[in-house]
Amino acid sequence: MMKKSVIVGQSGGPTAVINASLYGVVEACREAFDRIDRVYGMINGIEGFLQGNYVGLDELDQKELVRLRHTPGAYLGSCRFKLPDDLSDPVYARIFEKLEQLNAGYFLYIGGNDSMDTVNKLNAYSQSAAGGICFVGIPKTIDNDLVLTDHTPGYGSAAKYVAATVREIVLDASVYQKKAVTIVEIMGRHAGWLTAASALARNDETDNPRLIYLPEADFDADAFVGQVARQLEKDPVLVICISEGISDRQGIYLCEYGSESRKDEFGHKMLTGAGKVLERLLKEKLGIKVRSVELNVSQRCSGMLASKTDADHAALAGRHGLSAALAGQSGSMIAFERDGEDNFRIQCVDVGAVCNQEKKFPAAWITGGGTDVSREFLAYLKPLIKGEVKQEMKDGLPVYLRRKK
Amino acid sequence: MMKKSVIVGQSGGPTAVINASLYGVVEACREAFDRIDRVYGMINGIEGFLQGNYVGLDELDQKELVRLRHTPGAYLGSCRFKLPDDLSDPVYARIFEKLEQLNAGYFLYIGGNDSMDTVNKLNAYSQSAAGGICFVGIPKTIDNDLVLTDHTPGYGSAAKYVAATVREIVLDASVYQKKAVTIVEIMGRHAGWLTAASALARNDETDNPRLIYLPEADFDADAFVGQVARQLEKDPVLVICISEGISDRQGIYLCEYGSESRKDEFGHKMLTGAGKVLERLLKEKLGIKVRSVELNVSQRCSGMLASKTDADHAALAGRHGLSAALAGQSGSMIAFERDGEDNFRIQCVDVGAVCNQEKKFPAAWITGGGTDVSREFLAYLKPLIKGEVKQEMKDGLPVYLRRKK
Repeated sequence: MMKKSVIVGQSGGPTAVINASLYGVVEACREAFDRIDRVYGMINGIEGFLQGNYVGLDELDQKELVRLRHTPGAYLGSCRFKLPDDLSDPVYARIFEKLEQLNAGYFLYIGGNDSMDTVNKLNAYSQSAAGGICFVGIPKTIDNDLVLTDHTPGYGSAAKYVAATVREIVLDASVYQKKAVTIVEIMGRHAGWLTAASALARNDETDNPRLIYLPEADFDADAFVGQVARQLEKDPVLVICISEGISDRQGIYLCEYGSESRKDEFGHKMLTGAGKVLERLLKEKLGIKVRSVELNVSQRCSGMLASKTDADHAALAGRHGLSAALAGQSGSMIAFERDGEDNFRIQCVDVGAVCNQEKKFPAAWITGGGTDVSREFLAYLKPLIKGEVKQEMKDGLPVYLRRKK
Repeated sequence: MMKKSVIVGQSGGPTAVINASLYGVVEACREAFDRIDRVYGMINGIEGFLQGNYVGLDELDQKELVRLRHTPGAYLGSCRFKLPDDLSDPVYARIFEKLEQLNAGYFLYIGGNDSMDTVNKLNAYSQSAAGGICFVGIPKTIDNDLVLTDHTPGYGSAAKYVAATVREIVLDASVYQKKAVTIVEIMGRHAGWLTAASALARNDETDNPRLIYLPEADFDADAFVGQVARQLEKDPVLVICISEGISDRQGIYLCEYGSESRKDEFGHKMLTGAGKVLERLLKEKLGIKVRSVELNVSQRCSGMLASKTDADHAALAGRHGLSAALAGQSGSMIAFERDGEDNFRIQCVDVGAVCNQEKKFPAAWITGGGTDVSREFLAYLKPLIKGEVKQEMKDGLPVYLRRKK
């Protein structure tokens, strides 16, 4: 049998460990050199690949590979590119032509919901065209919103960043005597997983953040003002964590009440600004000192606070992605199953059942009338943030691997 | 001679290492137990002390002390409280009465410009009243804007945080193909020291951040738009670092063109929002994708990215603060002098010459027509960010010391 090549891409928003998955793929390829021809990386995902942009990954030496494992961002570059629903669109033939030119037999795509949509469509086209290429998805997203998997690589590190940073923000907020509210706005789109992680910042149950609002519970502005006022009676220092995606009963995102609201390339609304909206609301209604802090992109690119467990899982997902491809499991996504507290098992699930779905934060884990999360959630999260990644440092700064242009 | 007590306070904004200075004071006190009675900490600085709030620091055990050294924020709490210029104001007599009740002989105050003003006034009152208490200032500020010292504890850690985080933001900004600008807004008030640190994020001279704007150079919006357009021709991914305190030729802060502008307790303008103002400007003038990121409070409270050199200097400044007090050097502030690249010496300077002054970023170190900083500055900064602080971790999160309420 003629040896086929592997082509791997990264897509969607970066995470602290998406490159650990890439590392896992490349390392597994090297061990399977007897069955694999070359290893290519698409530059800027399927969008860049369509423009003929790819790079050989065989050239990376061992030192660069290890550095890649610990580098946040997306080494290969990323894209937000939606393939057409109509499989007779000529773009499919163009992609497959390019894949054949590279002698590709295995197509691995590391990404979230939208990226799994790409894998699913390419697999469907391949089935109909009998292309003989195996398409496998490797999950990543800080949002943790993929179905059919216990968790998603990228989430553990983002959750650790959120919990540690909110713990520090609570220290910062506690230095003055004055009554003051700090609102921390956290990523996660329509899912509250990442915002919920802020509960781990507490040292005990009475500690800040004392109010946590997730998108899975309808947000009511009047109730919110009342909850804040009651908390301020107990303790003048109040830290509140909110998800960027909270919305009211009418389904209007809080951030839409702000000055600007935009859409990304997939037509998804860009959800930032809810913190500022609530800052103004509290100032107006309660006349107190309020500041809002957007944790912003560091949530998805802080290599210095990555979770070792998460990085290990990401690398494992990459390795298993190749195994699944070599085993011919086209149309599958790598997923995690959990036995007990922290015993994880890797399996393959149907990528078609994953894409374009969102795994919401369970209603049963939302407590305090929509202002807190349960102990069950904390037990779920704790194993995912365990352990620290040892970063390579030079002159006091982290050393990261950059692609040569 | 009757042994006198030490009273120490923290004031102004927190930093990653202000508690390392407190640790230095307490540790030095323990070694000088033959000359010192008790060690007290003011709660919420001089403001809280006036209300009778203080705590005994002799109670901290060795494990707590080590934890204190690595805890960001201000363990004792802080204040922004300006003592009256008129030394005949009754507040002075009240403070001295309280100091005498505690048998205080040594007053140590850890803070920035405004805090040194407090030390200076208390010392002046003490001289006139022959109070016999020794007042010494221990410098801290992430802004690095104190005169008569090579640098200020707190700056090195904040600079390391800025450089490492901007390096990660550059990775994050580089994942897409599209022409896009990221504006990073950095603290520092009227001084550009902290924003200038972002230059260390570069891997080489052509790397991002490719434009850096400090408050020490007049900001010209038209020139800015031209500079951005020219940079985008060279490379579609542009990261710009701006100081929160940049202002135009008329002396109007950029952030004042934004929606809100407020003042703090010292009557200083609160400088945030310049990034958003420039985001809107670039979108309007160039019609491109722009996002702005406020690094926000993590710059002053990220214990996870503290500089070992900075933490060591902070602790040393605390130790020397006690030595100066024991030596009777009332009215002085601890300062750093540098011989050569990274050979530091500690000395005492006149606190009256430090307070209410601002050390600006040197004009000679601003290059590129106000868009970059010189190699001389990088050589100045590099030693200050060296080395990592080993944090105590538990279950994946940093363990910090909190004051019991």
